[in-house]
Amino acid sequence: MLGSGFIGRFYANSLQGYRSMDKIVSIYSRREESSRKFADDYAVGFSTTDMEAAIDRPDVEVVCIALPNNLHEEAVMLCCKHKKAVITTKPLGRNGAEALRMLLAVEKAGIFNGYLEDLVYTPKFIKAHESVNNGALGRILWAKSRETHPGPHSNWFWDLEQAGGGCILDLGCHCVEITRSYIGKDIKPIEVMCWADTVVKPIDAEDNAIGLVKYENGAIGQFEVSWTFRGGLDLRDEVMGTEGTIWINSFLRTGFEMFTTGKSAEYVAEKAESNSGWLFPVGDELNELGYNHMFMDMFNSMEKGTAPKETFYDGYVVNAVLDAAYKSAKTKLWEPVNLEIWRGKTGISKDQHLLEFDADHYLIKEEVTHYGAKKLILKNKTTGKIFEREIQ
Amino acid sequence: MLGSGFIGRFYANSLQGYRSMDKIVSIYSRREESSRKFADDYAVGFSTTDMEAAIDRPDVEVVCIALPNNLHEEAVMLCCKHKKAVITTKPLGRNGAEALRMLLAVEKAGIFNGYLEDLVYTPKFIKAHESVNNGALGRILWAKSRETHPGPHSNWFWDLEQAGGGCILDLGCHCVEITRSYIGKDIKPIEVMCWADTVVKPIDAEDNAIGLVKYENGAIGQFEVSWTFRGGLDLRDEVMGTEGTIWINSFLRTGFEMFTTGKSAEYVAEKAESNSGWLFPVGDELNELGYNHMFMDMFNSMEKGTAPKETFYDGYVVNAVLDAAYKSAKTKLWEPVNLEIWRGKTGISKDQHLLEFDADHYLIKEEVTHYGAKKLILKNKTTGKIFEREIQ
Amino acid sequence: MLGSGFIGRFYANSLQGYRSMDKIVSIYSRREESSRKFADDYAVGFSTTDMEAAIDRPDVEVVCIALPNNLHEEAVMLCCKHKKAVITTKPLGRNGAEALRMLLAVEKAGIFNGYLEDLVYTPKFIKAHESVNNGALGRILWAKSRETHPGPHSNWFWDLEQAGGGCILDLGCHCVEITRSYIGKDIKPIEVMCWADTVVKPIDAEDNAIGLVKYENGAIGQFEVSWTFRGGLDLRDEVMGTEGTIWINSFLRTGFEMFTTGKSAEYVAEKAESNSGWLFPVGDELNELGYNHMFMDMFNSMEKGTAPKETFYDGYVVNAVLDAAYKSAKTKLWEPVNLEIWRGKTGISKDQHLLEFDADHYLIKEEVTHYGAKKLILKNKTTGKIFEREIQ
Amino acid sequence: MLGSGFIGRFYANSLQGYRSMDKIVSIYSRREESSRKFADDYAVGFSTTDMEAAIDRPDVEVVCIALPNNLHEEAVMLCCKHKKAVITTKPLGRNGAEALRMLLAVEKAGIFNGYLEDLVYTPKFIKAHESVNNGALGRILWAKSRETHPGPHSNWFWDLEQAGGGCILDLGCHCVEITRSYIGKDIKPIEVMCWADTVVKPIDAEDNAIGLVKYENGAIGQFEVSWTFRGGLDLRDEVMGTEGTIWINSFLRTGFEMFTTGKSAEYVAEKAESNSGWLFPVGDELNELGYNHMFMDMFNSMEKGTAPKETFYDGYVVNAVLDAAYKSAKTKLWEPVNLEIWRGKTGISKDQHLLEFDADHYLIKEEVTHYGAKKLILKNKTTGKIFEREIQ
Repeated sequence: MLGSGFIGRFYANSLQGYRSMDKIVSIYSRREESSRKFADDYAVGFSTTDMEAAIDRPDVEVVCIALPNNLHEEAVMLCCKHKKAVITTKPLGRNGAEALRMLLAVEKAGIFNGYLEDLVYTPKFIKAHESVNNGALGRILWAKSRETHPGPHSNWFWDLEQAGGGCILDLGCHCVEITRSYIGKDIKPIEVMCWADTVVKPIDAEDNAIGLVKYENGAIGQFEVSWTFRGGLDLRDEVMGTEGTIWINSFLRTGFEMFTTGKSAEYVAEKAESNSGWLFPVGDELNELGYNHMFMDMFNSMEKGTAPKETFYDGYVVNAVLDAAYKSAKTKLWEPVNLEIWRGKTGISKDQHLLEFDADHYLIKEEVTHYGAKKLILKNKTTGKIFEREIQ
Repeated sequence: MLGSGFIGRFYANSLQGYRSMDKIVSIYSRREESSRKFADDYAVGFSTTDMEAAIDRPDVEVVCIALPNNLHEEAVMLCCKHKKAVITTKPLGRNGAEALRMLLAVEKAGIFNGYLEDLVYTPKFIKAHESVNNGALGRILWAKSRETHPGPHSNWFWDLEQAGGGCILDLGCHCVEITRSYIGKDIKPIEVMCWADTVVKPIDAEDNAIGLVKYENGAIGQFEVSWTFRGGLDLRDEVMGTEGTIWINSFLRTGFEMFTTGKSAEYVAEKAESNSGWLFPVGDELNELGYNHMFMDMFNSMEKGTAPKETFYDGYVVNAVLDAAYKSAKTKLWEPVNLEIWRGKTGISKDQHLLEFDADHYLIKEEVTHYGAKKLILKNKTTGKIFEREIQ
Repeated sequence: MLGSGFIGRFYANSLQGYRSMDKIVSIYSRREESSRKFADDYAVGFSTTDMEAAIDRPDVEVVCIALPNNLHEEAVMLCCKHKKAVITTKPLGRNGAEALRMLLAVEKAGIFNGYLEDLVYTPKFIKAHESVNNGALGRILWAKSRETHPGPHSNWFWDLEQAGGGCILDLGCHCVEITRSYIGKDIKPIEVMCWADTVVKPIDAEDNAIGLVKYENGAIGQFEVSWTFRGGLDLRDEVMGTEGTIWINSFLRTGFEMFTTGKSAEYVAEKAESNSGWLFPVGDELNELGYNHMFMDMFNSMEKGTAPKETFYDGYVVNAVLDAAYKSAKTKLWEPVNLEIWRGKTGISKDQHLLEFDADHYLIKEEVTHYGAKKLILKNKTTGKIFEREIQ
Repeated sequence: MLGSGFIGRFYANSLQGYRSMDKIVSIYSRREESSRKFADDYAVGFSTTDMEAAIDRPDVEVVCIALPNNLHEEAVMLCCKHKKAVITTKPLGRNGAEALRMLLAVEKAGIFNGYLEDLVYTPKFIKAHESVNNGALGRILWAKSRETHPGPHSNWFWDLEQAGGGCILDLGCHCVEITRSYIGKDIKPIEVMCWADTVVKPIDAEDNAIGLVKYENGAIGQFEVSWTFRGGLDLRDEVMGTEGTIWINSFLRTGFEMFTTGKSAEYVAEKAESNSGWLFPVGDELNELGYNHMFMDMFNSMEKGTAPKETFYDGYVVNAVLDAAYKSAKTKLWEPVNLEIWRGKTGISKDQHLLEFDADHYLIKEEVTHYGAKKLILKNKTTGKIFEREIQ
């Protein structure tokens, strides 16, 4: 494990949770005190402030990177050097160029690589994604993911140099991969329009942003991200298809509601803002946030010798989309997504929207009236005239 | 009442509902059968297919326009001619130019004019808006309104010539006025970015769109509209401020849930798609959709000789914003909002985002750690360095 | 209007709300200051501390009683004396004997009488009740109503002598009439089991209670009431039938959610306990709580010369059920409901529960298996043996 | 594993799920075909139709009983004979006498014993229970658990002889242990009032029931169970304390909502009744229903040599409470809970409800008025008089 901060601890809780056969054997942190504390808390045999030493040990089978964004590349390169399987927290890089170098490096080294995008491993996402794949929603038109909260816990996130960006990079990377998964990971993201601004925090990076990602088949992926949301961690997805819709609330409204006058103060949930009044805790954060299923997929895949659901390639695609978002926020134009490597479909055309009713007409709508008749709204193919027709 | 269709009947139900002192005395419809039926159903003394005849009657104090968009201007001009107070369904015009002509005409004629934007009169909106005005959310950063459903009931909506547009005009007009109200009706909308597409229906107008409206103070108004949503009438607003957030669900989730095997089939709610399984009816549609409070404001204002909350001027501003949206959807650029008439503030600058902590530092974040200490994230004003400081 | 307290003001807001043609012309209060303030606030022409003087005025068409429970009978008798139509807040009496005397008096006097049980007039209830009547839920098996909050506002409620009881009488009267309406107002309530206790407040009356009311057809009405609930006003109903279920949340979860850090403090909603954190206001309390539809029914009925949905007779039935509940809470037995007057059906037998499958079998259950087959669980009529049968 | 039916498979999915180090090594089923299929599906080395053979194998460390209720005792006795640790599905016995024999047997044999009450291991319950223990709700007054669905899947449940009861035994056992845990497992259940009836199904056992369990400290545990609920699996808990409340929805409303026209039919969730319209799937059933945390506690406890959270003793207490419920349903009286073995506190008195304000007064209520003053409702200790006092 590289990194002993907030996310490293979340990972460790999941990795060694339940009746797990997996074990952390080596921990690296930039600060000795921190690595030693982590080693104590999780019964880790070896702790160090030397990154390479943490990696280059015979009992290390896979390296898990839980470091600030600006240290990912260095860590990945060391894994390549020592031929260790590597899994990395999100985002993969601070930008597409970094991500591409890491992707090329791990593939050249021939090592197992996994991209730790936990939010496409939440139980709700997995179930919803299955339904989408089974066609329950028909053709997917639009997928939105929203992640907003009152801002990250550690100082490095707020520093543009270390983080590489603000809430777009920190939170948008989740949203892009979630919506891309619903739309289809083999469908090419074409261009991005993004609004971003710094409206509350005294920082150089953006603290609020909204983006639209257009895919080759005409579908739209949308992200809404903020570091200034008040009320907790708001994590919601919506998908809209021709045959249905899905609404997921992953954190603030999960069927658990508590009111307390606050006579007992306690930890409620990640990024909760209060411990009195109406509170909305989550039962099992590790599971609800996808960590358990994510590591299960990573390690099962590694053992089977297959690729996990999320690889560095996916991390690279996400970074490329976010690069376009950042550029768009500046130029105020729809900016193309530059993908030097693309392994999905190409040349997909926009889906058809002309639903034939009969030889002469398209069907616009069919509905049942108040008094029980069926009403059709039709369009004449030749004249373009739109009219209603009632049938019993 | 001009118009006897779906919306005219909704209006009539509200106007003559509760223990009302108001009464419809004259009904115009393009089809005689329709006007007669309306007259019967609502005990209206005079019915006609001659619009001017319907207006020019001594007992008519105010004319309510519930006609297709392309007939609004003609109706308004007749009201001006006969000096009758006029209230018009939304949108005011098919575009800003039409709206402007109507605005200038009613003001020149000196007649009372009301814009029937019911969704800023819903009980939830009124209450939420009060809270926003009282500062419960702090400075408003973002307001979103979403209205999506499976498409309108009447054929004229689908015809670009009569309607003047697709779901942007039909539904976006609600969203723009809702979000504008939260942000502040005296804050100028500056520019619009809009994506729109026709992805499901065989029509010329757009059936899905998303838009961002930037206001002079930096706030963003967002609309999401669709005529191809499956699942009923989805009517939700969200507002985000520096001190809080509001989530409103006006129709599909209002605390009323019913499961039925469907052995009894019945009317559930406007645009509901099913009458078995889990259903989500609304108790009192007229009230939930704002009609009662809207007409109350209109008539009370008229009697008091004041302007109602929503006038033709507001309808004009909405049309101007939507014009920019349509243009942006074509040019793919942020398009300026052209407002020949603007009666709000001007020259507002973007709100400040530098929160001072002490003479040398800005405050980025303050939070309570797991172990109960208070953690500050600060930024040095001179060096820009971001660091953490813990205090007891 | 008799009474100028909390409920009197709620009534007045509703009576003179919207575009109403109704007007309060006379106000009685026990305290002069209070009656004068009410007269000012609602533009009432006549105010007095003499109850009879308030009633016996030519312009008074109907008397609305909004007084503490122990004053209802006196007020009703004065209405009888002066032949004034009368509508009374809930509960009708402090017990069945009082209620019966009032019922007999108004019927003898031949005056219009209405029982102001607002919660069977809420828009949600009305809609749900229609669905139940239309058969959407099949045969009704169970109906529950829950009303709990942190306790009433005025001191007289807490005084056993004036109020006649605690939360059973104050809140249970709502619940009994709600559940009775779902089950069928013509179905006789037979016996009651009730638990009641004083567990938090230093009072003689009960502050928490749960009751089960058995009806002649075997259906169960359930009430859950409390004056010690923390979190606001919890108002929920559930109905369970052979073909479906209904869940109604009338107050705390109605599709309106707000988070605020509390920098602005304001009134949120009736019995809300906080003005920061997550709050759940109601858009339009008067409408959500049924006042508008209640007065509409009362006055429309009066004008048409028909009985309103809720009359003194209903108030009497409710009091009789609550008498049995109080007795049961003491004896710990199922206590019979003593109804000297019963105007519904009698001799109804329990509904049949033997669903025939074929000549030899009853059908217990039918379900679709994971692999798509249909599985039946049947019972042999003769042997009683229960077995599974799969059919394609 | 003894038993290869619905619940056995649920257990197996959990036991061998995630990155588990646990493994099923032997499977017994009454039907050979069934045991072989189970062995195939879960890669179990040994399958048999001889219960003792399944148990008496050297590699079996713990026996998991997933059999119909009438076979629990036989299986437990075999585990005692062969000194195998044993964990048993719920309910422990068909009645208190059976449960007591099993409890005495395992304790005499000195074997590890666990009671598989999964619903006190759901992530939501665990978190809620912690909050209750930390005092977030103050003193617990009332805890309710509701489990209703359209009826069990296997025929033996419907047979009174094999099952030992109807929905009280099948579902009430969950509810009793859940509510008992919130109230405190060391607080003695004293007496039970229960209504039960067979209102829909052609069976001898009850298909609907409601029960109240009174505890020695005055707290009330409530259960609502049904095999005839329409709409899916309704699993809700509510807890009410002097300082707060908790509402948990474990299955039908967990932040996952899907609408589908049903063009794709698929498995949605346990006991879901439809695959079109609005559906409410659960992300990860095994985790949401508590299986993962339950087995983790069982095996971790076994390895540490401690008792798990739920033992046969708990199963016995539950059976004793349910015996009283069954008796009460027949006698219509509050029936005492007969506990031959009780290991919790005894002689607890009812909690105090007299909150002192000052030497002369009790405090009934304190609230903030509309106009910002603080209002107290006080009771004079001597005279009993209740009055209001306003303070700034």
